[in-house]
Amino acid sequence: MTESEKPNWRPMWKELGIDMEKHDQLLSVLPDVFKEIYIDAQKNRPEAIGFWDFVVGDIHGIRVNELKKAKDEGKKVVGTFCLYVPDEIIFALGAIGVGLCGGTNFSNYAAEDVLPANICALIKSAIGFGIGNICPYYAMTDILIGETTCDGKKKAWEVLSDYKPIYVMETPQCKSRPQAREHFITELKALIKKLEEVTGNKLTVENLKAAMEKISKKRAQMRRIYEARKANPPPISGKDALLMSQVAFYDDPDREIEMVGKLADELEQRIKDGVGVGDKKAKRILISGTPMAIPNWKMHHIIEKNGAIVVAEETCTGTRYFDAEFPEIKGDSINDLLELIADRYLNINCACFTPNDTRLLDIKQLVNEYKVDGVVLYTLSFCQAYDIEAVAFEKILKKEGIPVISITTDYSSEDVSQLTTRIEAFLEML
Amino acid sequence: MTESEKPNWRPMWKELGIDMEKHDQLLSVLPDVFKEIYIDAQKNRPEAIGFWDFVVGDIHGIRVNELKKAKDEGKKVVGTFCLYVPDEIIFALGAIGVGLCGGTNFSNYAAEDVLPANICALIKSAIGFGIGNICPYYAMTDILIGETTCDGKKKAWEVLSDYKPIYVMETPQCKSRPQAREHFITELKALIKKLEEVTGNKLTVENLKAAMEKISKKRAQMRRIYEARKANPPPISGKDALLMSQVAFYDDPDREIEMVGKLADELEQRIKDGVGVGDKKAKRILISGTPMAIPNWKMHHIIEKNGAIVVAEETCTGTRYFDAEFPEIKGDSINDLLELIADRYLNINCACFTPNDTRLLDIKQLVNEYKVDGVVLYTLSFCQAYDIEAVAFEKILKKEGIPVISITTDYSSEDVSQLTTRIEAFLEML
Repeated sequence: MTESEKPNWRPMWKELGIDMEKHDQLLSVLPDVFKEIYIDAQKNRPEAIGFWDFVVGDIHGIRVNELKKAKDEGKKVVGTFCLYVPDEIIFALGAIGVGLCGGTNFSNYAAEDVLPANICALIKSAIGFGIGNICPYYAMTDILIGETTCDGKKKAWEVLSDYKPIYVMETPQCKSRPQAREHFITELKALIKKLEEVTGNKLTVENLKAAMEKISKKRAQMRRIYEARKANPPPISGKDALLMSQVAFYDDPDREIEMVGKLADELEQRIKDGVGVGDKKAKRILISGTPMAIPNWKMHHIIEKNGAIVVAEETCTGTRYFDAEFPEIKGDSINDLLELIADRYLNINCACFTPNDTRLLDIKQLVNEYKVDGVVLYTLSFCQAYDIEAVAFEKILKKEGIPVISITTDYSSEDVSQLTTRIEAFLEML
Repeated sequence: MTESEKPNWRPMWKELGIDMEKHDQLLSVLPDVFKEIYIDAQKNRPEAIGFWDFVVGDIHGIRVNELKKAKDEGKKVVGTFCLYVPDEIIFALGAIGVGLCGGTNFSNYAAEDVLPANICALIKSAIGFGIGNICPYYAMTDILIGETTCDGKKKAWEVLSDYKPIYVMETPQCKSRPQAREHFITELKALIKKLEEVTGNKLTVENLKAAMEKISKKRAQMRRIYEARKANPPPISGKDALLMSQVAFYDDPDREIEMVGKLADELEQRIKDGVGVGDKKAKRILISGTPMAIPNWKMHHIIEKNGAIVVAEETCTGTRYFDAEFPEIKGDSINDLLELIADRYLNINCACFTPNDTRLLDIKQLVNEYKVDGVVLYTLSFCQAYDIEAVAFEKILKKEGIPVISITTDYSSEDVSQLTTRIEAFLEML
């Protein structure tokens, strides 16, 4: 679709109260950035990735319009900021879940008045997009669902509550205890009560089971992409796989099942045909740490520009998003199903929990399974949880002979040349 | 007690495995700092404050020796880092609770290997004292009890678990919900189970009630000190009141009841006699924010050196420590008493909770009751929770005509002249 073929979304954005001047600025920058990082810097991409190029090219268009249509039909749009808020429940109640994390400092100006300087880039970006009225997805939401995963987010909800209806789900802090599971289930029930009020729908065994099956299918397709990345050479770049994952947070799950499935088909065929991106000898990198919200492609770009390939991400926009799964979706009551949901979500190893030594096991397993040459521990500045884990994990991985580098950064481009130098040196060492 | 009259504690410290060289350095610096800040810079102090001068003068001596004796008699010493870990339960089980937060960057060198650069000074200090073997109180503990109040602490427990037995109590994140109370009580029960194992003692209605009464009495005496500070001129400096509060975290509760009581008697007499510290026209300052662990006297010193008086602290080392209280200590079962404990603790308004708008009400109430001229919002760098609340509270207080200044700092002396300039300008404006 060329620019001239695109529908005119401006009336829709205006209706949503979008700050058109700022929004125009944003949309005038993004295509160039995308072209540089995704189109010009890559070759031999799978054909099916065209869907994601299209999605970025129309980032605030078709999907927003779909949400608008759904709302016109009485559906509710629910904004989330963390994978611990179960999409299964949102979709079961006939609502649409949309991940709203921000991945660019473009929106920071709008958050500067309500946030201190030393704050996580992801939170600052998301708040800026929200209160600056530059994100149509945010504008489309009827309610935001926060959680209590980290200090910055706990306070972010208080800031956002001045602008939007928001409900906070309490996520447990010590995930492996029986009482954490119990408390999480209690909180899931409170969330259901809230979302039943918002949607006017009632959760049933049937609609919950159906939503669990759908979201599971989406995760299964994403898992296929990651499985394919184990091949040498990988049939897809880390950058493209990351984009696939980023879009999965807000796209329609049915379309995701279809499009990610098609991409996976192609990648599996590529492996059979011995087709890959890059060199067989390219160094294979695992990135582990904080999430990378769209359009945060900085780290992947630096690594892949320098000849290595990111083969997996142990992040919320990576394996944490789809790895844990229901053993089987069965149960005669909502309670049975909520136990499955609780167990699935409490099986995700985020640094917001203590202890979280299981995350280190995940990293080691990925290093083995993906034949990783080096690990990049990636932390957004001021994220104390991942920052402290990185110090510990770096030492342990080094001791076990696994090459590792710890990078703390944000969304600015100021440190790109410094990071490039460090990554170059790291890759040479492998 | 002069230096030569002091018992020789060196054999005790050596036995505890203290790093004697570093410890000697620490103890050689502290008296000079204390003399400068507490003795030389103040006049007309209440006589009873002599006890606290003595405590600082023998900071790692008598009290540590008491703990040693108690341990020899089979008692257990329990280290804590937050006022949400109920002393009532620790003391009811015949153990001794000792607050271990660190208030100086002297110990940072020992934590540098296990922590990132951007980390809260209090956590860095505490971890440094612990793993650097320079704190005899830490060395005396049989077990540490952590909590899940903030990101930095959640990870700190993981670091400390390599060096000491540690148990983490999960504190709720959204305190005002019924399920938070329930969950907190469940966690209190789990803590009791753990501490029963550690102490070999059994919690009973009787011993719990007795401990609740004792700790309540301590808090009541502390409240008398703060009540006295409402007078104009205040009968005690902010600096001295802060020291009283800091020591209360680790001193014997019975002695605290006695000594704080004596100090309160004297302050009340002073008010009757019209005796105070400083000028009646001195500006009255409320400090609100993160805790100030001993020997962090930096902010108070800057303010009082410039002619103002700190009349109250809305901090963990201030009103949050003693303000919430049991309506009445009665109940026929442990469960009844735990409900009282849960309600008391969940009535403390720390930024670790969301929402936490009740903290703003506390600040406003203190401003009125203490006839405060200006509020200093005090945040330790990298504490996102207090940092974000400070941005919001500053705006609201300003809008309501309450003079306010927001200060983010740490334990270093590097910013003292800059802070002094800012505080001077703030005081002039009042």
